[in-house]
Amino acid sequence: MYSFENDYSEGACKQVLDYLIEHNDIQSSGYGLDEYCNQASLLIKKEIARDDVDIHFITGGTPCNVLAINLLKPYEAVICVESGHINVHETGAVEATGHKIIPTKGKDGKILIEEIEKVILSHQDEHMVKPRMVFISNATEYGTIYTKQELIDIADVCKKYNLYLYLDGARIGNALMAKNNDLDLKTIAQYVDIFYIGGTKNGALLGEAMVIISNDLKENFRYYMKRNCAMLAKSKIIGQQFISLFTDSIYYKNAANANQMAQALKDIFLQNNIEMYIDSPTNQIFPIIENELLKKIKQEYQILEWGPYDDQHTIVRFVCSWATKEDIIDKFKNDLILLKQA
Amino acid sequence: MYSFENDYSEGACKQVLDYLIEHNDIQSSGYGLDEYCNQASLLIKKEIARDDVDIHFITGGTPCNVLAINLLKPYEAVICVESGHINVHETGAVEATGHKIIPTKGKDGKILIEEIEKVILSHQDEHMVKPRMVFISNATEYGTIYTKQELIDIADVCKKYNLYLYLDGARIGNALMAKNNDLDLKTIAQYVDIFYIGGTKNGALLGEAMVIISNDLKENFRYYMKRNCAMLAKSKIIGQQFISLFTDSIYYKNAANANQMAQALKDIFLQNNIEMYIDSPTNQIFPIIENELLKKIKQEYQILEWGPYDDQHTIVRFVCSWATKEDIIDKFKNDLILLKQA
Amino acid sequence: MYSFENDYSEGACKQVLDYLIEHNDIQSSGYGLDEYCNQASLLIKKEIARDDVDIHFITGGTPCNVLAINLLKPYEAVICVESGHINVHETGAVEATGHKIIPTKGKDGKILIEEIEKVILSHQDEHMVKPRMVFISNATEYGTIYTKQELIDIADVCKKYNLYLYLDGARIGNALMAKNNDLDLKTIAQYVDIFYIGGTKNGALLGEAMVIISNDLKENFRYYMKRNCAMLAKSKIIGQQFISLFTDSIYYKNAANANQMAQALKDIFLQNNIEMYIDSPTNQIFPIIENELLKKIKQEYQILEWGPYDDQHTIVRFVCSWATKEDIIDKFKNDLILLKQA
Amino acid sequence: MYSFENDYSEGACKQVLDYLIEHNDIQSSGYGLDEYCNQASLLIKKEIARDDVDIHFITGGTPCNVLAINLLKPYEAVICVESGHINVHETGAVEATGHKIIPTKGKDGKILIEEIEKVILSHQDEHMVKPRMVFISNATEYGTIYTKQELIDIADVCKKYNLYLYLDGARIGNALMAKNNDLDLKTIAQYVDIFYIGGTKNGALLGEAMVIISNDLKENFRYYMKRNCAMLAKSKIIGQQFISLFTDSIYYKNAANANQMAQALKDIFLQNNIEMYIDSPTNQIFPIIENELLKKIKQEYQILEWGPYDDQHTIVRFVCSWATKEDIIDKFKNDLILLKQA
Repeated sequence: MYSFENDYSEGACKQVLDYLIEHNDIQSSGYGLDEYCNQASLLIKKEIARDDVDIHFITGGTPCNVLAINLLKPYEAVICVESGHINVHETGAVEATGHKIIPTKGKDGKILIEEIEKVILSHQDEHMVKPRMVFISNATEYGTIYTKQELIDIADVCKKYNLYLYLDGARIGNALMAKNNDLDLKTIAQYVDIFYIGGTKNGALLGEAMVIISNDLKENFRYYMKRNCAMLAKSKIIGQQFISLFTDSIYYKNAANANQMAQALKDIFLQNNIEMYIDSPTNQIFPIIENELLKKIKQEYQILEWGPYDDQHTIVRFVCSWATKEDIIDKFKNDLILLKQA
Repeated sequence: MYSFENDYSEGACKQVLDYLIEHNDIQSSGYGLDEYCNQASLLIKKEIARDDVDIHFITGGTPCNVLAINLLKPYEAVICVESGHINVHETGAVEATGHKIIPTKGKDGKILIEEIEKVILSHQDEHMVKPRMVFISNATEYGTIYTKQELIDIADVCKKYNLYLYLDGARIGNALMAKNNDLDLKTIAQYVDIFYIGGTKNGALLGEAMVIISNDLKENFRYYMKRNCAMLAKSKIIGQQFISLFTDSIYYKNAANANQMAQALKDIFLQNNIEMYIDSPTNQIFPIIENELLKKIKQEYQILEWGPYDDQHTIVRFVCSWATKEDIIDKFKNDLILLKQA
Repeated sequence: MYSFENDYSEGACKQVLDYLIEHNDIQSSGYGLDEYCNQASLLIKKEIARDDVDIHFITGGTPCNVLAINLLKPYEAVICVESGHINVHETGAVEATGHKIIPTKGKDGKILIEEIEKVILSHQDEHMVKPRMVFISNATEYGTIYTKQELIDIADVCKKYNLYLYLDGARIGNALMAKNNDLDLKTIAQYVDIFYIGGTKNGALLGEAMVIISNDLKENFRYYMKRNCAMLAKSKIIGQQFISLFTDSIYYKNAANANQMAQALKDIFLQNNIEMYIDSPTNQIFPIIENELLKKIKQEYQILEWGPYDDQHTIVRFVCSWATKEDIIDKFKNDLILLKQA
Repeated sequence: MYSFENDYSEGACKQVLDYLIEHNDIQSSGYGLDEYCNQASLLIKKEIARDDVDIHFITGGTPCNVLAINLLKPYEAVICVESGHINVHETGAVEATGHKIIPTKGKDGKILIEEIEKVILSHQDEHMVKPRMVFISNATEYGTIYTKQELIDIADVCKKYNLYLYLDGARIGNALMAKNNDLDLKTIAQYVDIFYIGGTKNGALLGEAMVIISNDLKENFRYYMKRNCAMLAKSKIIGQQFISLFTDSIYYKNAANANQMAQALKDIFLQNNIEMYIDSPTNQIFPIIENELLKKIKQEYQILEWGPYDDQHTIVRFVCSWATKEDIIDKFKNDLILLKQA
């Protein structure tokens, strides 16, 4: 049964795997102090066009989020949208380090600057936590993306209120390859204080690259990594994977494929008069599917039920990845027509 | 300048103070293992008509809330209303112990069982925290109270979903003395798993009595107390105060006075065509005051601005206590008329 | 049965109690922002002859220790002697905030600078915590005291290795009133970064005065206090007690009495050929008592068994307080002679 | 420059790598709920000859240790030897979850039952943490191993005092392949409550297999994993690696090679009159090398300086791995003779 359930169903993309195989037997230092991590850092620094940043290779997205927020003082809190990954899908990993998350409504998975301001204005003394960071993800949990102007506006409000801006880039490749996107890594690095470039969901076996821009946040980061279970003995394999991903634009090509396949799926749904719950331009789409039809689809495809839409319809999430091939999209197109008629 | 800012502006009520003085020189064991704490426990057990409970004397309300929630497993979370004290006014003390708070809208400061159910249904796997406790306070942050039926309904939903029910009783005396209240300590102890009887806001210098009903929650509670900075060397002074408070119904008389004075204030406002933001029957009232008038009131009385109502009005909190006397209410009545005319 | 078990068996000393009674009905702001706390701060600043310090009034000794150490970054650790209160008698309250304690052997309850250096030299990379604070207490758990030169030497090693020096002053009065002591509060404040002056064990009902000297440690301390359950609603009662204690040298007189009574007890033991386990000049003494005799003593006096000395002897702790009177010492003298003969 | 610095310098052993490559493109469920993890569990259950255990695949050794200890209640503590990995080399990751580590002297890196008993006897009330787990590692940090009888004795004392027994098996393969070892996985699983089988240091790219035997410790373990950053999206790659390792005894063969090579190195040292600091039968050896000679060795080989032995000698750690080949040992033999003469 083919799975559109997520973008981490397969192993690594070919280039990543080849690189790992080729360098498998070479001895390296442990815990990220190796030549591969160093070289991967240089490639990323080139990509964002600055070398005054610190780059660390982390085991996964949850540890990245935990680490970034744990840089705050104990009584400081992070603001995010209600649907934010840290607020919903980390099993309290952020609170486990003692930090409160302040959720705001947001819109289409994106944070609103007026809501940030409202939080600030209502947190004014030591009986409440002190908001000190804004968390955004790009692409968001709904597959939507931030425009350059939106990012600048958020960065401005952060500066105004002395808040760090942290961007969760688990799907940053998908955001950057989306139609109408006007951001790139270089621009993002200009406006955020810290962000990570996701490997796991874009062709790596595991691993994310944390990029620390604000000098305030750099000190002794490796201590945080070790203390928070985020440092791999053989970190070099994360370095190796990022070398591959940032060679020959593989990172972007992987993401572009995921987006194209998902958008093709979207067109198929629309052609079949199945509407989207939200208009996402990236590799996650959210069709509203009639329950009987959904039942049939689920017999042939693995997907994630996002939640009920109404009594007769369900919001479903379809995700494509670097590994999704055109022929499965074609097959789905035919299957959908058949299933609708069945 | 007279203060209606809160119910902890004064020291202890006369009976409490007298008892402290009288027993000051008598030697006792430390850390709550003394005869006074024992005797106070017996009085409370009598009050709730059961002796299969554990009672501990805690330094304050924040530690009570922290302790109750910290009894959960690390990945378990507590559900409360957005305005709940633990969600807003504890500077992240709950998250400091690693637990996530799941806020719900609620109504008039009270939790809704349908919202509890919605939280349960949306937390179903290990990528999310596991809701395991419901936090309510009675009286609430808005001075409102739960009816017996409401408490039973909440207890039922808690049983259905295997949730502990915890009641923050910082102002439980005020709730029980409110007009139309149909609860008492005995009934509360039948339906909740753990709750505390507040001393600080009802005539004690400090101290709250934590009552643990559910056997699951009793084990090694003193270890939690010590570890969470909630155990006083001279705990006996908390025991002594609760002996006084639960002798001759002082606890209820104190709360009744606070309610009466606040309700008298409410009447004064209503007579002056100043409406309430919320209809609270306890010792906190929330008049909506025109900004110019408020300015004048603030020159003579200390109060808490709760938040803006509209461009020209502010929601204000007036609190009365066991110590508030009738003559200050009379004075305020005259002052208000004068200030309105000024 | 008279208790020599500890120095917190009684309530408050007369002056403290009188002050509390006299000011009981006066309204004050909550949470330490009142005139009493302010005035007590001024008295302490005068006592240490500097006003560039921050002073906060805390509920107890455990929260003081937790707060001081929680000022460190998450991966930073505190060095202390094995017998240090934070290492043994806080039920892991320090670790509860995520900080490791690094114990060293020490001598007579006092830390050795060569052991501090050894810890530093063996903690050099991010696979180990980073030592960042030295914890000492004066008087120590064994009732011993630091000399001025010892304090200076420790402060020097702290400066050399960029460590904060924190002094737990639960029994600082007893240290300063000890025979041969050459320290005073003013000198201590010159050499440590943060310390507290204990109230609980020297005549107050509860409360300690935290004195923050290093500017690095001052920021947002009230947030830490609230988050760590260390802030009392009616903090003013701690302020009031410290006003009394630092008026007419009551603080010193209380401590001096405790020391004198304990030293008189020591003389009684020595006259009866009962040796001390350790030669403490303060209010705690540690006679080595033959087990049969101990059994008899315990029938008439409450004491703490510190541990076995050999098969036939036990190390016992006798503690005197501000409240211990000469006649009980005389009575004990007679009783001891009788019990030995019995 | 060849490295004897550790056993995680290379990538994966051939069989592991081949399996990863072969199964790279197959879609699987995320987060350990895949067929590979399931199959790997079955292999391990067969190996330990029981199927009433829970097995989880974890990113690394630090998260394993953190997870096992975090199963304790907040006030419960773990006992280990001073040199234990959790006490020295986890940057406070255990304390980060709020648990105190109680170190004991031990002997040759191994815990002593009389020291466990002493800890128990000195922790008797709520002013101290409650010891509830014993941590051992096999092989230890010094490369030494436990005998079957020693394990049984420790398990007995644990049962007597209601302590969980946890075994850190980062190098369990090396322990089991050591000369004179009389333990096997099956026996270990009979006596401990929880342990892990290390992959990282024995031929995997990353990953460890946590085996939970005690029913008490099984509940909701996946919640702990997610919350503590120990769950990989593509956990299947850990499952895949353990399938390879437990097929055709690769796990044992890898460990046996590492031991043989290290023991051959040991012989070379002994033949050259260089003594061992400790007599380790596994893949880590600790020669005491004269400082001038060490300087020369370090120009050609990477090693870890364990610490000074005396003014003229240093304790050095040499580690061999599954990847160490005989020819490098031969080369070292010749080099050592030449360097000594140089």
